[in-house]
Amino acid sequence: MTARKQPAGAGNGEAPDVLDVPIGLHASGTRRETDSMGAVEVPADRYWGAQTQRSLIHFSIGDDRMPKAVYHAYGHVKKAAAAVNGRAGRLPSWKAELIGKVADEVIAGDLDDHFPLYVWQTGSGTQSNMNTNEVISNRAIQLVGGELGSKTPVHPNDHVNMGQSSNDTFPTAMHIAAVKTVHERLLPSVRALQEAVEAKADQWREVVKIGRTHLEDAVPLGVGQEWSGYAHQLAQAVDRASSCAQGLYELAAGGTAVGTGLNAPPGFGEQVAAEIASATGRPFTTAANKFAAQGGLDAMAGASAGLRALAVSLMKIANDIRWLASGPRCGLGELVLPANEPGSSIMPGKVNPTQCEAMVMVCIQVLSEDSAIAVAASQGNFELNAMRPVIINNFLHAATVLADACVKLRQYCIEGTELDRGRIDAYLDRSLMLVTALSPVIGYDKAAAIAHKADDEGTTLREAALASGAVDAEEFDRIVDPATMIHG
Amino acid sequence: MTARKQPAGAGNGEAPDVLDVPIGLHASGTRRETDSMGAVEVPADRYWGAQTQRSLIHFSIGDDRMPKAVYHAYGHVKKAAAAVNGRAGRLPSWKAELIGKVADEVIAGDLDDHFPLYVWQTGSGTQSNMNTNEVISNRAIQLVGGELGSKTPVHPNDHVNMGQSSNDTFPTAMHIAAVKTVHERLLPSVRALQEAVEAKADQWREVVKIGRTHLEDAVPLGVGQEWSGYAHQLAQAVDRASSCAQGLYELAAGGTAVGTGLNAPPGFGEQVAAEIASATGRPFTTAANKFAAQGGLDAMAGASAGLRALAVSLMKIANDIRWLASGPRCGLGELVLPANEPGSSIMPGKVNPTQCEAMVMVCIQVLSEDSAIAVAASQGNFELNAMRPVIINNFLHAATVLADACVKLRQYCIEGTELDRGRIDAYLDRSLMLVTALSPVIGYDKAAAIAHKADDEGTTLREAALASGAVDAEEFDRIVDPATMIHG
Amino acid sequence: MTARKQPAGAGNGEAPDVLDVPIGLHASGTRRETDSMGAVEVPADRYWGAQTQRSLIHFSIGDDRMPKAVYHAYGHVKKAAAAVNGRAGRLPSWKAELIGKVADEVIAGDLDDHFPLYVWQTGSGTQSNMNTNEVISNRAIQLVGGELGSKTPVHPNDHVNMGQSSNDTFPTAMHIAAVKTVHERLLPSVRALQEAVEAKADQWREVVKIGRTHLEDAVPLGVGQEWSGYAHQLAQAVDRASSCAQGLYELAAGGTAVGTGLNAPPGFGEQVAAEIASATGRPFTTAANKFAAQGGLDAMAGASAGLRALAVSLMKIANDIRWLASGPRCGLGELVLPANEPGSSIMPGKVNPTQCEAMVMVCIQVLSEDSAIAVAASQGNFELNAMRPVIINNFLHAATVLADACVKLRQYCIEGTELDRGRIDAYLDRSLMLVTALSPVIGYDKAAAIAHKADDEGTTLREAALASGAVDAEEFDRIVDPATMIHG
Amino acid sequence: MTARKQPAGAGNGEAPDVLDVPIGLHASGTRRETDSMGAVEVPADRYWGAQTQRSLIHFSIGDDRMPKAVYHAYGHVKKAAAAVNGRAGRLPSWKAELIGKVADEVIAGDLDDHFPLYVWQTGSGTQSNMNTNEVISNRAIQLVGGELGSKTPVHPNDHVNMGQSSNDTFPTAMHIAAVKTVHERLLPSVRALQEAVEAKADQWREVVKIGRTHLEDAVPLGVGQEWSGYAHQLAQAVDRASSCAQGLYELAAGGTAVGTGLNAPPGFGEQVAAEIASATGRPFTTAANKFAAQGGLDAMAGASAGLRALAVSLMKIANDIRWLASGPRCGLGELVLPANEPGSSIMPGKVNPTQCEAMVMVCIQVLSEDSAIAVAASQGNFELNAMRPVIINNFLHAATVLADACVKLRQYCIEGTELDRGRIDAYLDRSLMLVTALSPVIGYDKAAAIAHKADDEGTTLREAALASGAVDAEEFDRIVDPATMIHG
Repeated sequence: MTARKQPAGAGNGEAPDVLDVPIGLHASGTRRETDSMGAVEVPADRYWGAQTQRSLIHFSIGDDRMPKAVYHAYGHVKKAAAAVNGRAGRLPSWKAELIGKVADEVIAGDLDDHFPLYVWQTGSGTQSNMNTNEVISNRAIQLVGGELGSKTPVHPNDHVNMGQSSNDTFPTAMHIAAVKTVHERLLPSVRALQEAVEAKADQWREVVKIGRTHLEDAVPLGVGQEWSGYAHQLAQAVDRASSCAQGLYELAAGGTAVGTGLNAPPGFGEQVAAEIASATGRPFTTAANKFAAQGGLDAMAGASAGLRALAVSLMKIANDIRWLASGPRCGLGELVLPANEPGSSIMPGKVNPTQCEAMVMVCIQVLSEDSAIAVAASQGNFELNAMRPVIINNFLHAATVLADACVKLRQYCIEGTELDRGRIDAYLDRSLMLVTALSPVIGYDKAAAIAHKADDEGTTLREAALASGAVDAEEFDRIVDPATMIHG
Repeated sequence: MTARKQPAGAGNGEAPDVLDVPIGLHASGTRRETDSMGAVEVPADRYWGAQTQRSLIHFSIGDDRMPKAVYHAYGHVKKAAAAVNGRAGRLPSWKAELIGKVADEVIAGDLDDHFPLYVWQTGSGTQSNMNTNEVISNRAIQLVGGELGSKTPVHPNDHVNMGQSSNDTFPTAMHIAAVKTVHERLLPSVRALQEAVEAKADQWREVVKIGRTHLEDAVPLGVGQEWSGYAHQLAQAVDRASSCAQGLYELAAGGTAVGTGLNAPPGFGEQVAAEIASATGRPFTTAANKFAAQGGLDAMAGASAGLRALAVSLMKIANDIRWLASGPRCGLGELVLPANEPGSSIMPGKVNPTQCEAMVMVCIQVLSEDSAIAVAASQGNFELNAMRPVIINNFLHAATVLADACVKLRQYCIEGTELDRGRIDAYLDRSLMLVTALSPVIGYDKAAAIAHKADDEGTTLREAALASGAVDAEEFDRIVDPATMIHG
Repeated sequence: MTARKQPAGAGNGEAPDVLDVPIGLHASGTRRETDSMGAVEVPADRYWGAQTQRSLIHFSIGDDRMPKAVYHAYGHVKKAAAAVNGRAGRLPSWKAELIGKVADEVIAGDLDDHFPLYVWQTGSGTQSNMNTNEVISNRAIQLVGGELGSKTPVHPNDHVNMGQSSNDTFPTAMHIAAVKTVHERLLPSVRALQEAVEAKADQWREVVKIGRTHLEDAVPLGVGQEWSGYAHQLAQAVDRASSCAQGLYELAAGGTAVGTGLNAPPGFGEQVAAEIASATGRPFTTAANKFAAQGGLDAMAGASAGLRALAVSLMKIANDIRWLASGPRCGLGELVLPANEPGSSIMPGKVNPTQCEAMVMVCIQVLSEDSAIAVAASQGNFELNAMRPVIINNFLHAATVLADACVKLRQYCIEGTELDRGRIDAYLDRSLMLVTALSPVIGYDKAAAIAHKADDEGTTLREAALASGAVDAEEFDRIVDPATMIHG
Repeated sequence: MTARKQPAGAGNGEAPDVLDVPIGLHASGTRRETDSMGAVEVPADRYWGAQTQRSLIHFSIGDDRMPKAVYHAYGHVKKAAAAVNGRAGRLPSWKAELIGKVADEVIAGDLDDHFPLYVWQTGSGTQSNMNTNEVISNRAIQLVGGELGSKTPVHPNDHVNMGQSSNDTFPTAMHIAAVKTVHERLLPSVRALQEAVEAKADQWREVVKIGRTHLEDAVPLGVGQEWSGYAHQLAQAVDRASSCAQGLYELAAGGTAVGTGLNAPPGFGEQVAAEIASATGRPFTTAANKFAAQGGLDAMAGASAGLRALAVSLMKIANDIRWLASGPRCGLGELVLPANEPGSSIMPGKVNPTQCEAMVMVCIQVLSEDSAIAVAASQGNFELNAMRPVIINNFLHAATVLADACVKLRQYCIEGTELDRGRIDAYLDRSLMLVTALSPVIGYDKAAAIAHKADDEGTTLREAALASGAVDAEEFDRIVDPATMIHG
């Protein structure tokens, strides 16, 4: 008997026929499932086994369930591992294919109802890994007409989990789920928002408005320039989020229990990563150092900083827009936002910048979720960071609400926003800070005296300037020209 | 016509019969509902109206729904307001009673399926208030055989919302929901945990163990003393949480739109608070200053600090327990935790401190949710803090997961924890820090020399002490007696 | 020899004369000092000993020094302990008095230059305790003409530290320093600010202004009402801070190394607390459970929540003020703040709300320092939370900058703030939300139609209302009266 | 008169002789200085002017001073701007050179005593910019024998600040200061630590130890592997910090007041960035969009995430080390840390992991400072984020304490750490988790039964395995070989 060549229970018997059984267990009551601690009753209409059931009982804390995206990602891990094990002859090819077939159902979300576990469980994510192993095992058993719970011919540990540990596969699934959420859901929605903002910047390129610094009147700029700033912030935040997420491409799979790769053959990590890269179309590779990848979750914290970068930029932009739209008659009133819904249960006719408020709240939430991730990532011990569920749950939540809030802000606010040109022009006429243009000619001190005089006497800047004798009318009109000023 | 005496549409016609119609709308397709912005199609089997539907469309961000506890609390508000309006003759008494009857259904959770809105909505909570108004209106209309969406004879704004604004009622509902969650769910579960810990402290009163400071061996203490510290931390945290939540008893109701109480009669806030106090059995009163109560959410941030206090204590305790139980053979191993489930998908026979890990993760989550609440509470502007949904959602979530995690930790960890007496005794025998007891007799410097000598030479403390000549055997045995040392 | 009666070196010889030597060591170069690890050279003009010097070398991290307030507080601890030890005959009374005399110099800050240690040191604060012990020892030795570094007749450990450990005295000093800073520096400055705000609320009681919710025009309120809200927020925050700080009155002294009180006689903690209470005039008592008091720092985290409560309120108020003062011509412009300094290096005549900005930044800092405290407080292990320096440093910093920022905001902003009545009146005239007063009379829906009509057509509310036929002029003028509306 | 060609006061008179006057003003009492608001008395021995003095009075909040690194960076900005202005003929070349000469003194830190301002000041940093302008102006005046405070021939605004605003130059100085601190102080000290850790990994490559996951015994790994994980975490964190800091190379200079570049000539920003790049040897460029660069501080928040990444990794590593060194007799005891100082004032002979504690506290501080930066960065409004001082102060503080803590941890902990081989070997012999190696041969379920049996009966794994009959002795010894197991 040669351990490395013929794993336990790997080669027992011929390949059975795979039946065409749709997903579903048409049974009621409970079924007896076992694990190394003994037997447990599980709902007869569910694929999960004893360990899942124990976790359900011991960890029903709040309503937070492990995000389904983690299981879909785990489907990729199980499929890849089975393929690699199959090719190496560690697993009969029919078993590898059978596991792969069920893994495809997991990936597609077709087995979502069979992943009931809570976020607040073991810190390694082992229970969600075992949930996956158990469901795949029983579904595979069903497909070959076996007995549910028999672990034969597909054993949750020996076959579905072959060459794997939760310690390396859970962070692998975290990375896959995070990458997919960031690249397929979050960044496209931010980019669409960025383009909508940029379109407004283009549309309003020629409109000159008063600038504001410290909330106080400043020198003019173009509305298009102001919005180009928003667009640029978003573009940079997208780059930052993308760059921060680079570390997620390194997968821990292959490290098994403590990073040494015990019970996984040489090259297993590389091959699994290649399978996953191929299946997802993302450049996943095996982590260069598995001890770092399993003892810490630094890549997740690093990626989370990219979500936060988006929140930081979006909060500023959403705040600016709601302030610029404040009014209609007693605020700044430069922007007119779409009136999507009545704003008040008591004040008839009121319209509020609700999309901006939702975005600001989302940003506050994301900032705090990012903090939770950083604290949790710092709390690893030895060969494992046992704070994984809280990290992946916060990450996926933050990415998702940011993504959706960007869609809504674009659709129901930015795209329908209009300018109140009358208000914008009136401010520009009224401001005193255009005096700044005079400063290089007459000096800061004289210019300041003119501004103070106009302010004290309630006159226009032009009146005060001419009265000061420092410039004549021709000079004033040439120099203090907002349309010129905004081009530097 | 006297405005104050006969509100719009208040007294039109006789009291209709209230039918005995169970909750539910047996219709399919959609129904046309209107608000001040026009008509909207809503699902025909739902009670909600146009504003709820608009919000559903505009704010489908992630999966976070406004917690049902907020609506149950809103039921109390609507019922109380109707009762007060009815008694004052502003609302015909049959309408007041009808609204109260439906509000009872809201309070009981029977209409939960009709409150679908997202957390990420208008920052005032107006949409959830209108959801409540609309559902009560239509359910009341159904009960008197009227036409859904007709707003007759019970209008969502004019009648259900009479004397109210979202600006004063939403924070009122927040306070009610928070108080109920803290007092009915959270504190009882922490108290039960505290008692379980105290029972262990009593049980292990006589067991002497080595103390540890800086993770390093220190002088002895009783296991019971150590656990009495945990129990005391929890007791104080309960007091702190309770004290921090005091501010929640002040209700904004009566302030209406901006705190002045416009459209609410004098004494309205006092009477509504009294109704709510009576219905809930909690000492609610009207807020002394409505401008503060609506412009800020300081009481919520204050109460959140109480949740955080629990998290701070629980994190320390959960960490201590998992470290003391580390092993079984290569850790500290003083405690033996219940083996609830297999710990590893790859390492057979492994048992992990999973309840402690879940608790630590919950605590990290609560710390970050508390931060979100504090930041959001600081972001009010003028007469409204428009960050309410993010605050109440984080608060109720934090309180709930803390509550449940305490139940689980007690049930599946604390109550079944045992001591490994052999290990505890062995550490005690081995430690050098018992030298401290000699210090008052022979001085710190000589005592230090003895400890260093024992450490360097790998001997026991007694051997090194006697070898030093500083004490004789009789003296050593009398003074260096752990059982005496733990009593000061 | 009976250990408990005659501590090591306690009673050797007669009381020496205490010389009248001013503070200061007139020597240059270095002096040889020793501790249990050997000899170290220390600067000859400093009182500190070997352990302080080792810490200086090993922990020169950044520029953060342990706040002097901690040492002043430690002076109280050392004085109290010496007095109790002296009364009990454990320490000859002349030694107790000598230690007390030097402790008074510590309390007064006269020895501040001899406490050089960094914040980032041992997590127990032992090095700062030993710094105190060493300085008191050497200063006492100087006063009786002894040899510096000889530890005779006053030994840093055996006498100055008698009955104490860093583990119980450092948190004791933390609590004393925190209480004094909160009650003597922070709360008085917030109260003065609160009174200044209240004075403005009184002064502006009769001025009616437009309210704003969601930044959007709402119904009117009094400027005095708005400011009464600020004053109330501050008053409540003061109450909250005071209530949160209650836990600081419990002192760990008496617990010694691990909470058991080893090497301290019975009643030591009670007596030391009583001495400190008497010396400081604050109701300090001994902690009910020393294991909790030393293993955790929950009381500090609890007290920090009170600082945060102030920051939450102050941030809202400071933001409101700078927004209401925005302009002068293109902002809200209701308030005119004192022009304390030129606002721009390039824009002549610009004045900015700089005090408000400083306050907002201070509040952000305090929120983050509070988070650091909460995280650190959660990180205790077993019989010690070894995160004390980071906690006390953040706490005292937060309390101090909050205190000073309140003084400055009051002095240089609030007290000199004026109203721009013209602007306030103009907004009131212009607003459409006064329509709300019509709502109880004509119903929400008709009122909303009027507001929308006025908005669309750019007319006044009165024009639109009369045009609608829903009210006549007499009715409108009676009902839509801002001065009445603000009284509910 | 042509504004653009001959700036105010730019070309008045011949170049004066530059005197060889050392830094210092030998005067006592006060000197009268003026700004656009009037005259102020300033200390006669200081170079600063009226605006600095006003700020000192209005903002004495706590003890936090604007970091000197900001002024050194500002020296680069002023020098670069003067050079560019001089080359363009906007400033006479002798003035440009004179400003450059004084700017060199600023850069070198020689004028540090003349930069007294507090962190808590105007949110734009204008007061620190004016402090720089005033000091350079007066020092330049001194060098040409002029009258201090006369602003002639070098005016603080018209000449030193020419083509600049605080709004563009303060973030420019922030970026320069941050880049220099990160690259010259922080990263080198982390790299040195990383190398020291790696050296230990190499040294201990052959030592096999028990792994720990969930704090519980797991399968073996090499001590060198464990430390290679730490080294890899640090290497990645350095990369992450470096990558996060990329955004700092973009400089706002050239944007002037609101980003349009008003009063700066075309190409000014590009040329100033090029000068600064050349002077500092860092690849600074002009920001692609000045509106984003001044309205937000996203690059600072992005760079701060890099500091946090270091803190996250370092906290895990420092915690691991102190736990592995816990003991000496009642902890894990695998590592022996250098005994740098006595650990306890009461427990003689105690040695504690103080460097690790200091590092953990520093990391907690950095995490919270990073949060403050993110919140502050989100709080910009319109054309300015007025939260700059709180951001740069936290950033530079975090970078500095991290840098120093890494130096100390390396020097006083890592480099002197030794292994306790006896302890390490004993754990390895004792552990049950080596059963994992059997799992692929005999299956997970049988392997689990063996581990449970050994645990229950207190036997070795080998005894239990042979007793089970599942393997024979030869097989067991071949398969369960730790030295083989650690290679996967």
